[in-house]
Amino acid sequence: MATLGNSTNIFWHECPVGKLERQRLLKQKGCVVWITGLSGSGKSTLACSLNRELYTRGKLSYVLDGDNLRHGLNKDLGFKAEDRTENIRRVGEVAKLFADAGLICIASLISPYRKDRDACRAMLADENFIEVFMNMPLELCEARDSKGLYKLARAGKIKGFTGIDDPYEPPLNCEIEIQQKDGVCPTPGDMAGEVVSYLEGKGYLHYQ
Amino acid sequence: MATLGNSTNIFWHECPVGKLERQRLLKQKGCVVWITGLSGSGKSTLACSLNRELYTRGKLSYVLDGDNLRHGLNKDLGFKAEDRTENIRRVGEVAKLFADAGLICIASLISPYRKDRDACRAMLADENFIEVFMNMPLELCEARDSKGLYKLARAGKIKGFTGIDDPYEPPLNCEIEIQQKDGVCPTPGDMAGEVVSYLEGKGYLHYQ
Repeated sequence: MATLGNSTNIFWHECPVGKLERQRLLKQKGCVVWITGLSGSGKSTLACSLNRELYTRGKLSYVLDGDNLRHGLNKDLGFKAEDRTENIRRVGEVAKLFADAGLICIASLISPYRKDRDACRAMLADENFIEVFMNMPLELCEARDSKGLYKLARAGKIKGFTGIDDPYEPPLNCEIEIQQKDGVCPTPGDMAGEVVSYLEGKGYLHYQ
Repeated sequence: MATLGNSTNIFWHECPVGKLERQRLLKQKGCVVWITGLSGSGKSTLACSLNRELYTRGKLSYVLDGDNLRHGLNKDLGFKAEDRTENIRRVGEVAKLFADAGLICIASLISPYRKDRDACRAMLADENFIEVFMNMPLELCEARDSKGLYKLARAGKIKGFTGIDDPYEPPLNCEIEIQQKDGVCPTPGDMAGEVVSYLEGKGYLHYQ
């Protein structure tokens, strides 16, 4: 019996079918690919492209998109600092469940603060958290402005917008960094390929 | 762009690999098996047994256990009425994600209030929410008292304990009801078999 935060009388139920069995069934290893970066840096594009590339290889992945989750699990949260932290905590906890279920879970959200991302990393065995930093210049993201949000932020109609009037803290030790080469952005396929190569090299796409 | 509760500037990203593709990969259909009932009624036992039975058939399922989630996603919640409601809402939202990922998601939690369970049902297409009512007499659950919680509740050391000083509202239209036959409890295998037969009959264990 345990006392945890506001909860008491909580037992832990161990089920005889665990992560190993599910990984054997899926012929892959569960993990979290955490894509972080500015709005407009290509997080969702990479998430979709990676999801498709893994599917064509017969691997089961699932995208947790920060925006989409705000329609459901996190619809009670706004964009205040503590709400952002709670938003990321919940996505981390859910991503952990998906990894435990044996899936390659692709989490795609700005997640601007280092401590929030590191808290998610700490939830998992370190090697099962693969941080992908979309290292694109603010000017590029703002020029794209596919959602028109930078314009609103510059006009002061959105407050606390990451990159404009709220900081983005780049990762210090991410597993993968996506960036321009000679001023040219990698294609979605190139970006996905980079992550797939990493997963392949680390043995996530097989089960031995 | 949408305004939802506390969130604005939220877009919906559609990925080209969707539920249908994942179901094809897994050769099954995603759904939620929601097991409700008193403490000690056998929810976790059924969840484990069902999980194992599905695994032996090569099907991917995952158990969301109410107690276990209180160690992670829901560790900020207690047992007040609004916390219980939020606890169940979050489990429902996560179960929905797992079903969307193509898994047979087995949610196991007391979930004593009808309106909370119905809210989870409403999150999914109706036929993808399979409510299993562990209809065991309170006397039996209390006699088992495998966690020693009824004893504590009777002694007044736990307040608001379902069945003792907090109500359990039985489902009115559940898909499956597990009960004693001639005063004898079904075995874990029998209970799992009942759910598997239902899933089989409804086509969840295949993909056409």
